[in-house]
Amino acid sequence: MIVNALSKRTFKHLASLEGLIGKANVSAGQSTLYLHSHDESYHRTRAPDAVVFPTCTEDVAKVAKYCYDNELPIIPFGLGSGFEGGITAPAGGVSVDTGLIFPIDPGADATIGGMCSTSASGTAAVRYGTMKENTINLEVVLSDGRIIHTGGPGRHFQKSSAGFNLTELLVGSEGTLGIITQATVRLHAAPEYLHALIATFETIEDSLACANLVLQNGVPVGRMEFVDPKSIDVINKHSNLENDVKPTLFFELIGSPASVQEQLETVKWCLEENNVLSMKETADPEERKTLWKARHMAYYATLGQCRPGQQGYSTDACVPQSKLTEMILSAKEYIAESKFSKDTAIIIGHVGDGNFHIFTGVDPSSEEEIQDIRELARKVANKALELGGTCTGEHGIGLGKKQFLVDEKGHDVVELMKSIKNVFDPKNIMNPGKIFF
Amino acid sequence: MIVNALSKRTFKHLASLEGLIGKANVSAGQSTLYLHSHDESYHRTRAPDAVVFPTCTEDVAKVAKYCYDNELPIIPFGLGSGFEGGITAPAGGVSVDTGLIFPIDPGADATIGGMCSTSASGTAAVRYGTMKENTINLEVVLSDGRIIHTGGPGRHFQKSSAGFNLTELLVGSEGTLGIITQATVRLHAAPEYLHALIATFETIEDSLACANLVLQNGVPVGRMEFVDPKSIDVINKHSNLENDVKPTLFFELIGSPASVQEQLETVKWCLEENNVLSMKETADPEERKTLWKARHMAYYATLGQCRPGQQGYSTDACVPQSKLTEMILSAKEYIAESKFSKDTAIIIGHVGDGNFHIFTGVDPSSEEEIQDIRELARKVANKALELGGTCTGEHGIGLGKKQFLVDEKGHDVVELMKSIKNVFDPKNIMNPGKIFF
Ligand SMILES: Cc1cc2nc3c(=O)[nH]c(=O)nc-3n(C[C@H](O)[C@H](O)[C@H](O)COP(=O)(O)OP(=O)(O)OC[C@H]3O[C@@H](n4cnc5c(N)ncnc54)[C@H](O)[C@@H]3O)c2cc1C
Ligand SMILES: Cc1cc2nc3c(=O)[nH]c(=O)nc-3n(C[C@H](O)[C@H](O)[C@H](O)COP(=O)(O)OP(=O)(O)OC[C@H]3O[C@@H](n4cnc5c(N)ncnc54)[C@H](O)[C@@H]3O)c2cc1C
Repeated sequence: MIVNALSKRTFKHLASLEGLIGKANVSAGQSTLYLHSHDESYHRTRAPDAVVFPTCTEDVAKVAKYCYDNELPIIPFGLGSGFEGGITAPAGGVSVDTGLIFPIDPGADATIGGMCSTSASGTAAVRYGTMKENTINLEVVLSDGRIIHTGGPGRHFQKSSAGFNLTELLVGSEGTLGIITQATVRLHAAPEYLHALIATFETIEDSLACANLVLQNGVPVGRMEFVDPKSIDVINKHSNLENDVKPTLFFELIGSPASVQEQLETVKWCLEENNVLSMKETADPEERKTLWKARHMAYYATLGQCRPGQQGYSTDACVPQSKLTEMILSAKEYIAESKFSKDTAIIIGHVGDGNFHIFTGVDPSSEEEIQDIRELARKVANKALELGGTCTGEHGIGLGKKQFLVDEKGHDVVELMKSIKNVFDPKNIMNPGKIFF
Repeated sequence: MIVNALSKRTFKHLASLEGLIGKANVSAGQSTLYLHSHDESYHRTRAPDAVVFPTCTEDVAKVAKYCYDNELPIIPFGLGSGFEGGITAPAGGVSVDTGLIFPIDPGADATIGGMCSTSASGTAAVRYGTMKENTINLEVVLSDGRIIHTGGPGRHFQKSSAGFNLTELLVGSEGTLGIITQATVRLHAAPEYLHALIATFETIEDSLACANLVLQNGVPVGRMEFVDPKSIDVINKHSNLENDVKPTLFFELIGSPASVQEQLETVKWCLEENNVLSMKETADPEERKTLWKARHMAYYATLGQCRPGQQGYSTDACVPQSKLTEMILSAKEYIAESKFSKDTAIIIGHVGDGNFHIFTGVDPSSEEEIQDIRELARKVANKALELGGTCTGEHGIGLGKKQFLVDEKGHDVVELMKSIKNVFDPKNIMNPGKIFF
């Protein structure tokens, strides 16, 4: 158990924090600290010195003000499902556990605060956009305890040109500008009718060309996911399924029955144009879930085949749609060149967004494995940047991609970002050590 | 002609600017200064001291660096179609005319820089979103002449979580953070099929209830505009048309023929549910243009009935969709209470976005008329804020809405914005006097 050595000695601010927001809402127990010391990733720094569980915005503000006065790091914590060590506490401090559950599914269990802060998206983004397009207003506690509303208190509107867009500045800021305590998000009408379709291809090229053709034909797909043969194999073994071990596209088509019918015709034409091998489809809710299971299990099935002690790892590059095939073929090569991931790594892709992940395992206690994974990450990010893309489509920079951020944006832009952080957080106590060196 | 007194004496930096970017690209001629002294609005401050027409980003950077070293205000100029005096030069300085024409229509003639800077939208936003959702990357010249790319040089991707979202920070910044010299925007496939429909109602309530019902039924309208009876009357007279002088909804439905057919059925059901009086429809391109003419002429027809010397004026409040009826009914009252606008003002609405405009005329040389228009603007903005809305949906703060910005966002948020401006523009030379007091 990698618990902060500091937590063994008494954390002198504990009693004060308890006094501020109640004894029951503050913890420095070993297991709580451990749970708040790491997310889904291999990144290990330190555990926080204490975890607080505020029950209202005012309590978050009291904690922030206290940390500000005492120059203690504040680390916003969602559910710890992140992939870049965003919630680790490299300099100790207070983990602020703000678990507001968002009922709309982005992929993993995640909180609204975490999703806003990483600009999360997931399989439905191709249709509904990311957190960026779906966040209207944020209540934010600043490092000194002030409470602001990025869109003005209580406001919600379709669009606004009133001053700088602080809402979008906070979305994706990974807890480095403030603690999000409330979010006004866009809800969407549930689709009238859903239809699932899974198709296999002989080659990755065919499958991705098909995805592009579907987009070019303007089909408003609900979801469109790529899963590579290795994933299918791993998932078959994990969940006792018998899907063809081939490059596969998963579709969910949504709308009125008539419009889904029309979409379906176009999609099938695109499949034929690209040498589809096999196809399964259904509108039955239960069968739909079974069909999509293979996609949804990809990450956990990958973890399941990892060695004990290994932790999940995910890359997150996102490239222009026209470059996705070149990117994914290169990713395959990088996997083959990797010492520890060549047998475990799978590739899945949000192929309507140009975004894909390599999922694999890594043992955080092995320097050699970490070096190997860093090498893989570096190759993927460099290739994405070479193709005009970004190193992260939805996970964030966190601890693992600081250098890529500089490579991607250039020195001047990163310096501007740091200066903006300084405006919000002059003492650098908001999730210090994340995003920037 | 309201030309800056300063321009009468020699502007001592003229020769230096000419040396930097060529004599042909610098002007201090009276008519050029005049053209760059005001936009479509009544706002009159001063003309710039010189206008530069740079032909490449590097020349924009040279001008910025020169102004930075000499502490001269820099005012980015698009086409001057703005409604909030964004391009006026209250402290003189250099107007940087960056006319890059954007072929996609937002309403008026406008440049891509102006549209990004005001976070413009228009009649198609209900389907395609605003500049905010459609801007991927911006090349920006900072006040000291540095050139940055908000998304990283040459990058274009569907989504990214790499650091703070500077692209969205620049969109809507009204030339106060930097000069936009290039924009990477999202293009959309032209719709296969278009169908126009115009419907009249006895009451404003019925027409807006119909618009809401169409949205609630998830019809992906291409455009959906409200035009009040007074507008119809003014337009009839202006363009020799014979439309019924009633509250009117203009629809454009787009998609495949089958999906438009389906949309049309839903729209017609919504019309019936809300006591539609009359309906005209067509898919013929020429007839479509004629039908929509009444909407597109609204602003110029309003100007046409104004007294000589009057300039156009537009409010721009945007409220939650559910509050739009209350808002527009209140706006009607405010117009009735106005001394100079009660006979000229019309109301049109982007009613899929909760956004509407009062168009009227005002004589910039009459203090009494300006006071009267300010009173109208104040009532509209206050009501919008009371309803949880924003004072500006698409025009920006500029000169005319500085107090509303404070009322809308709160003091702390505006101070954060000013501090962010200070990061980008430490000498306060980028379009000074706009957005903030
Ligand atoms: C199986 C699996 C699948 C996944 N699939 C997807 C996917 O499809 N799409 C996707 O986008 N992501 C995906 N992820 C990654 C992860 O779910 C997202 O990054 C998610 O947004 C993190 O939410 P969280 O609440 O767990 O945040 P955490 O991991 O707790 O924190 C993430 C970051 O946000 C900050 N933060 C948390 N709460 C707040 C707050 N209230 N205020 C300010 N900052 C805060 C933290 O400090 C940290 O920097 C997946 C993860 C897993 C394990
Ligand atoms: C008839 C009519 C109808 C209209 N309808 C709509 C509508 O439906 N929707 C809508 O959104 N607007 C509408 N407008 C308002 C106007 O067209 C928009 O605000 C437009 O975006 C302004 O573009 P412009 O190029 O004329 O900018 P300008 O008026 O020249 O400038 C506007 C602001 O942007 C800044 N700016 C200009 N270029 C740059 C640059 N390169 N870099 C940085 N800053 C820059 C200026 O400094 C100023 O602050 C309408 C206007 C008219 C006259």
